[in-house]
Amino acid sequence: MPINHKLLILSPNKNKYRALIEKARLVNLEFADQPTADVDIVLGEPRSIQAALASLPALNWAQSTWAGVEPLLDPASRRNYTLTNARGVFGGLMSEYVIGYLLAHERKILKRFEDQKNKIWDESETGTLLGKTIGLLGVGSIGAEIARAAKFFGTTVRGYTQSSETSKYVDMYFHPLESTLESDSLLSVQEQTPALQSFANGLDYLINILPNTVTTRRIVNTNLLNALPPHALFINVGRGQTVDESALIEALNQNKIAAAVLDVYEKEPLPKEHPFWTTPNLLMTFHTAAPSLAEDIAKIFVENYNLFIENKPLKYQVDFERGY
Amino acid sequence: MPINHKLLILSPNKNKYRALIEKARLVNLEFADQPTADVDIVLGEPRSIQAALASLPALNWAQSTWAGVEPLLDPASRRNYTLTNARGVFGGLMSEYVIGYLLAHERKILKRFEDQKNKIWDESETGTLLGKTIGLLGVGSIGAEIARAAKFFGTTVRGYTQSSETSKYVDMYFHPLESTLESDSLLSVQEQTPALQSFANGLDYLINILPNTVTTRRIVNTNLLNALPPHALFINVGRGQTVDESALIEALNQNKIAAAVLDVYEKEPLPKEHPFWTTPNLLMTFHTAAPSLAEDIAKIFVENYNLFIENKPLKYQVDFERGY
Repeated sequence: MPINHKLLILSPNKNKYRALIEKARLVNLEFADQPTADVDIVLGEPRSIQAALASLPALNWAQSTWAGVEPLLDPASRRNYTLTNARGVFGGLMSEYVIGYLLAHERKILKRFEDQKNKIWDESETGTLLGKTIGLLGVGSIGAEIARAAKFFGTTVRGYTQSSETSKYVDMYFHPLESTLESDSLLSVQEQTPALQSFANGLDYLINILPNTVTTRRIVNTNLLNALPPHALFINVGRGQTVDESALIEALNQNKIAAAVLDVYEKEPLPKEHPFWTTPNLLMTFHTAAPSLAEDIAKIFVENYNLFIENKPLKYQVDFERGY
Repeated sequence: MPINHKLLILSPNKNKYRALIEKARLVNLEFADQPTADVDIVLGEPRSIQAALASLPALNWAQSTWAGVEPLLDPASRRNYTLTNARGVFGGLMSEYVIGYLLAHERKILKRFEDQKNKIWDESETGTLLGKTIGLLGVGSIGAEIARAAKFFGTTVRGYTQSSETSKYVDMYFHPLESTLESDSLLSVQEQTPALQSFANGLDYLINILPNTVTTRRIVNTNLLNALPPHALFINVGRGQTVDESALIEALNQNKIAAAVLDVYEKEPLPKEHPFWTTPNLLMTFHTAAPSLAEDIAKIFVENYNLFIENKPLKYQVDFERGY
């Protein structure tokens, strides 16, 4: 007799997800309306899954609707289930965001709007992406997609990763020295400093795409920011915890770098009293660079469910130790 | 005995051009400091060439540093010389401009900056280029380059041209009906209306790249603007004369289209009293979308000079009748 599976959806888009999954007519799948003892699958936001863990004794597999799964990584939390996250769907949106803000920076889109308000016909030339050098801190599926777009516009692309070299659009890879000796070792940011500094040297743009892990926390610190040229632009579409926020504010206040664009923050929503809101040459967006579209996530869930019922390895499994 | 040629440079970048050309060590070429009876070649801005024409009886070839050569097209002006313009060098810059403003529009970059100033954490989703439809009014070398970039970001690309179909990145071409019968006929904007309307129907973005000619003057008029959906964005990087400016202002004031981005105007610099400065949902730049970089133009000149001394056809010749 086939085993029946019971799915709990924990998302503000619950109804949309349910409709999309019902449309896929998955075999032996029932829906639960709330956490019950027989729920073995959960689909939802990491925070909501974390909150429900204690009420889901039979949980076997959790599919996160987000890429970042920090709330589920706490070593004190349960880990006796398979955790998969959303991957492979954010690259295009992230590329649009990064290229959009790079071009807004080079083309002085905000400055031109000021000129217009002041009726100033300013014919001075603006910049171009062509020939610039971009550094990607993290080259997973999103980084690879940004590399492809950056290459399209004629930039030289550097990639910083612990070990893998998977994108052909990266012209030069940088790794922490130690990672070549023992690929599973967890390097402190301190140990990575020499590699990070040669990676940052001469960059026009630094793009952070790193997740929040023990080896990436505050990796964008004073050392790294000081290694950038003063005309450099920093964009963070990774996680807020990877940036030393005070160091970034200081770098901007002292014109050590030209500008920054942030989509993520150590604390979200950003508190009203946070200095970022009014830091000069800082542009903010609100964790909206690459929204999780229900259609994309439902597709991942359906694909993984079909692997799950055949006892095959799921896609996009998160390693609780590595954190991604 | 070899013929000596004499070059007059008419540009604010005169010294830069001279240095770049001297570096190329062209044979039998001398430089003139001012218009003299023996100058047979001129390199410069169309307006300056026009002003000097009467003092250049021996003029044989004029290389424009710009793409647009309107000042030299006046039927009352001399035309007994070969006129070449700058082409093939603006595509990349124009693509950056167009993609930059499309992304600024979709990503609401100006709105997000307002949110930041007001300390509003606005998580609402923004738009994407993926899946949108873009229409290119004019598909020459610049249009083809914009088509390539638009395709990279996953848009469907329509192209409107009199006859040629040269870009593989254009998914669907539109032509005025008559042009298939007699390719050299000059069509009035009126005659082109049906073709323009089917081209415009359902476009998310309309990009004008057309030069100023008798068949393009005010081609972007009320008929064409009314054929666009209300969420459409219009960008003009062609020539100001191709737009009926009053019709555009009306379309924006009445929300018949969502927004416009203009780099060119009927009169430049735009007079302070022009309504464009304060028209809602209109963003202006100041004929800076694709500056003529001296390095690029000098390269064209050198290449053409080598063809010129061998009596071979020059590249980028302008047809005085067609106007491009």
